[in-house]
Amino acid sequence: MNYLDIYQTYRKKIKAYDYALWLISWDQETEAPERSNDYASNQLEVLASAQYDLEMAEERLEAINHLYDQINDLNDEIKIEIKKVKKSIDRLLKIPKESYIDYQVLLSKSSKVWAEAKHNNDFESFLPTLEKIVEFNRLVVKLYETDTLKGYDVLLDMYEDEMGIKEYDQFFDTLKENLVPFVLEKTKKKPKFNRALTRNKFSIEGQRAFSKYLLDVFSYDLKKGVLKESVHPFTSGVSSTDTRITTAYHEDNLISSIFSTIHEMGHAIYEQQVNESYDETLLNGGTSMGIHESQSRLYENMIGRSYEFWAQHYPKLQEIFKKELKKVTLDEFYAYVNGVSRGLIRIEADELTYSLHVMIRYEIEKQLFNGKLKVKDLPKTWNKLYRKYLGVTPKTDTEGVLQDIHWAGGSFGYFPTYALGTAYAAQIYHAMNQDIDIAKAISSNQIHLINEWSKEKIHQFGGLKTPKEIMLIATKEPFDPHYYVNYLIEKYKVILKD
Amino acid sequence: MNYLDIYQTYRKKIKAYDYALWLISWDQETEAPERSNDYASNQLEVLASAQYDLEMAEERLEAINHLYDQINDLNDEIKIEIKKVKKSIDRLLKIPKESYIDYQVLLSKSSKVWAEAKHNNDFESFLPTLEKIVEFNRLVVKLYETDTLKGYDVLLDMYEDEMGIKEYDQFFDTLKENLVPFVLEKTKKKPKFNRALTRNKFSIEGQRAFSKYLLDVFSYDLKKGVLKESVHPFTSGVSSTDTRITTAYHEDNLISSIFSTIHEMGHAIYEQQVNESYDETLLNGGTSMGIHESQSRLYENMIGRSYEFWAQHYPKLQEIFKKELKKVTLDEFYAYVNGVSRGLIRIEADELTYSLHVMIRYEIEKQLFNGKLKVKDLPKTWNKLYRKYLGVTPKTDTEGVLQDIHWAGGSFGYFPTYALGTAYAAQIYHAMNQDIDIAKAISSNQIHLINEWSKEKIHQFGGLKTPKEIMLIATKEPFDPHYYVNYLIEKYKVILKD
Repeated sequence: MNYLDIYQTYRKKIKAYDYALWLISWDQETEAPERSNDYASNQLEVLASAQYDLEMAEERLEAINHLYDQINDLNDEIKIEIKKVKKSIDRLLKIPKESYIDYQVLLSKSSKVWAEAKHNNDFESFLPTLEKIVEFNRLVVKLYETDTLKGYDVLLDMYEDEMGIKEYDQFFDTLKENLVPFVLEKTKKKPKFNRALTRNKFSIEGQRAFSKYLLDVFSYDLKKGVLKESVHPFTSGVSSTDTRITTAYHEDNLISSIFSTIHEMGHAIYEQQVNESYDETLLNGGTSMGIHESQSRLYENMIGRSYEFWAQHYPKLQEIFKKELKKVTLDEFYAYVNGVSRGLIRIEADELTYSLHVMIRYEIEKQLFNGKLKVKDLPKTWNKLYRKYLGVTPKTDTEGVLQDIHWAGGSFGYFPTYALGTAYAAQIYHAMNQDIDIAKAISSNQIHLINEWSKEKIHQFGGLKTPKEIMLIATKEPFDPHYYVNYLIEKYKVILKD
Repeated sequence: MNYLDIYQTYRKKIKAYDYALWLISWDQETEAPERSNDYASNQLEVLASAQYDLEMAEERLEAINHLYDQINDLNDEIKIEIKKVKKSIDRLLKIPKESYIDYQVLLSKSSKVWAEAKHNNDFESFLPTLEKIVEFNRLVVKLYETDTLKGYDVLLDMYEDEMGIKEYDQFFDTLKENLVPFVLEKTKKKPKFNRALTRNKFSIEGQRAFSKYLLDVFSYDLKKGVLKESVHPFTSGVSSTDTRITTAYHEDNLISSIFSTIHEMGHAIYEQQVNESYDETLLNGGTSMGIHESQSRLYENMIGRSYEFWAQHYPKLQEIFKKELKKVTLDEFYAYVNGVSRGLIRIEADELTYSLHVMIRYEIEKQLFNGKLKVKDLPKTWNKLYRKYLGVTPKTDTEGVLQDIHWAGGSFGYFPTYALGTAYAAQIYHAMNQDIDIAKAISSNQIHLINEWSKEKIHQFGGLKTPKEIMLIATKEPFDPHYYVNYLIEKYKVILKD
């Protein structure tokens, strides 16, 4: 066997374990009975360990090194794959096995510690755990640093290729200059909505029916997907032929499930439309967190919160909730789904203020990894930044620094991709509008045209192109955050005009 | 490491693969999107092959052989396990690898060939496949034969320990003598039911609500289980903490889903109540197909089709189907759920005639493996036996020899356990009635008393005891088919009195 064959033989095996681990986790999060959890964890551990042994097999590493040495003789697909694999293995080998295992053990317990601390508004009880997690990530930074990649950049690069402090600073500075003043000026008043929307109960059954309707509207392919329910909505894809989503229904919030379903469809349609032949490779799925989020946000916000969309689909919602929505006009409903307020909670934030929540986390992470901020001082800094950029102050750490699970899971460098993806979305939306009349596509119930454009310009490539390359292909220019700021200000100066 | 440690280390790994394979198959049968099937099959193949390598690892086989040599030094649990494992490995090693692989490939295609043949009423198109399957099973018989185990006995023993032709002949002869004349005499007339039952549509939603209600009535533990839907109802357990069931709803048949749900709960409560410490061993799950079926049939028939049961729960059903069941009395409903008729289709058969369908398959299999019957003559023999024992003749092979999937899956020797289990159930029911007043337990909504008795006498042991031992523990005597015949005749001479 030549090295390529060896590599591909291992890949086939490793992907089978990916599949098993993916399915166990999907099952546990959506359907598995409560008491099955311990048993499932034990089996998962065995399978993950078998997969690790395959990944680290001498024979495989040797094959990868040989292929890397002759990288220019390989075709594009495999070349890109080998580069990625080589990078990830080189990194893994740098971490002392003992530290790695200690960290995995720490993480396996940390989300429970975090959840309890959040529940009890007790940051101190989470502090020792969080300090250890940060410490490990500081070690990772040290071990992974290269001539061109330093400090927090190491972590940022893990989630979004070629995005570092320099690029993110530029991005967030644009928001600070243009968006923060607009937000602070325009959100002084609390918005008022038709009370039928905020006071009524909306049956889960009715919401389920509307979510099913939405699958059809967006052409989410149920032959290659599933819609289920879970505590927190998510997308979970393992191949272009199997990309599943969940949503969550709340009786006292009609639109939460609607926008979750649309958001997750954005993620899922991306993965469903990746070149099917990549399913056997490591190029399946999206290329980066940022591009992924651009798709979910474009579907959720640019399509799902547009006036054209609700002009077309509000009648169906009214048909389902005859009694509850009888006295709510289309304009009132549109105002409601685009309601803006200064909030404390990121995942409840509106389209306009969302990125400012992310920016705060970015500033904090940057300081954590350049040594300017100690973990114990997180709550103080958090609250200060919320006052500065959103004009609000958390009364408790529960609704402040403890609100997100990400840090408890060791994810540093991840948050910024949420804002970046949202900004990508505005630029992609602008470019798409040059090729197709988006408003018309939405009004004439032809969202499949948007899917097709996205497939051609973005989705089909999977992991073959970098985020930068994707932006160039899709929008014909590099990423420019002004599209995002302009989009928001254009939209919200109308909505917030009085 | 000593041999026991080696054995247990392998067992832990092998069970993790069991888990993954179990979950993939559960997912594919209940929820996975259609297009995901190919991808899932490919991953399953890799994992199954990795599991096979573990099972056949020299080091493991050596450990098993050593443990087997010193079997009397082992504790009961591990002793029984090693005996089972040794037997199955010795057998596997006897089959030439090439034949084994050819057969697996054949089976991977056979159910599709069978389904098409059934759909087209074309036995000839299935014949070559079935001939090859039978041929392989004849080879298996030859390779597995011992001094004490000959011919068809080899296959029978695979599904039910210590049950062979001698025992089954005795059992079915009792049915022929006592049950066949009773059935032929009592089922000349077609039964008549309240037309509201046979003509109405019963909403899936209403049926779902009643199935959920039944879970509670039977104390099926949803912390360790799930109720889902699939084309054919089944139970799928992987541990005592995770045993799932499915049912199937049909608008034009109210009781089909009810009895499927109860039947599968019988299977599932069995596995949920096995000693939890066996989850890490090979002793989890039921001890045999026959004992398993005894539990599902006892729940379905002895409890679920009793008058006391419906006296207690028919009001709830009427509450759900107010309009549809308004004019149906309890007695009419009871008559309907116990309706008897000479049918052609096993899975639609009533409690009284069910075992005769199985007996026909047993006679055919016996002849297939003693050389008296050629595969091509199956349809003729099938039809002849249906005339003889049930007084009906299939008009097509679709409703005759092609109706069941079992032979297409290579299962010979399996069918008889269905009848055997049903007969076990009658004897167990009789014994249980000595300890607790079953009618009263049902009437007072205390079915948990039945679960508790079953746990103590049957369930807790999992695979630790043989079927024969279980019958002795639970009923204090060996299996005796007269309990079954007596139960049926007592019950149905009342129901079929006019």
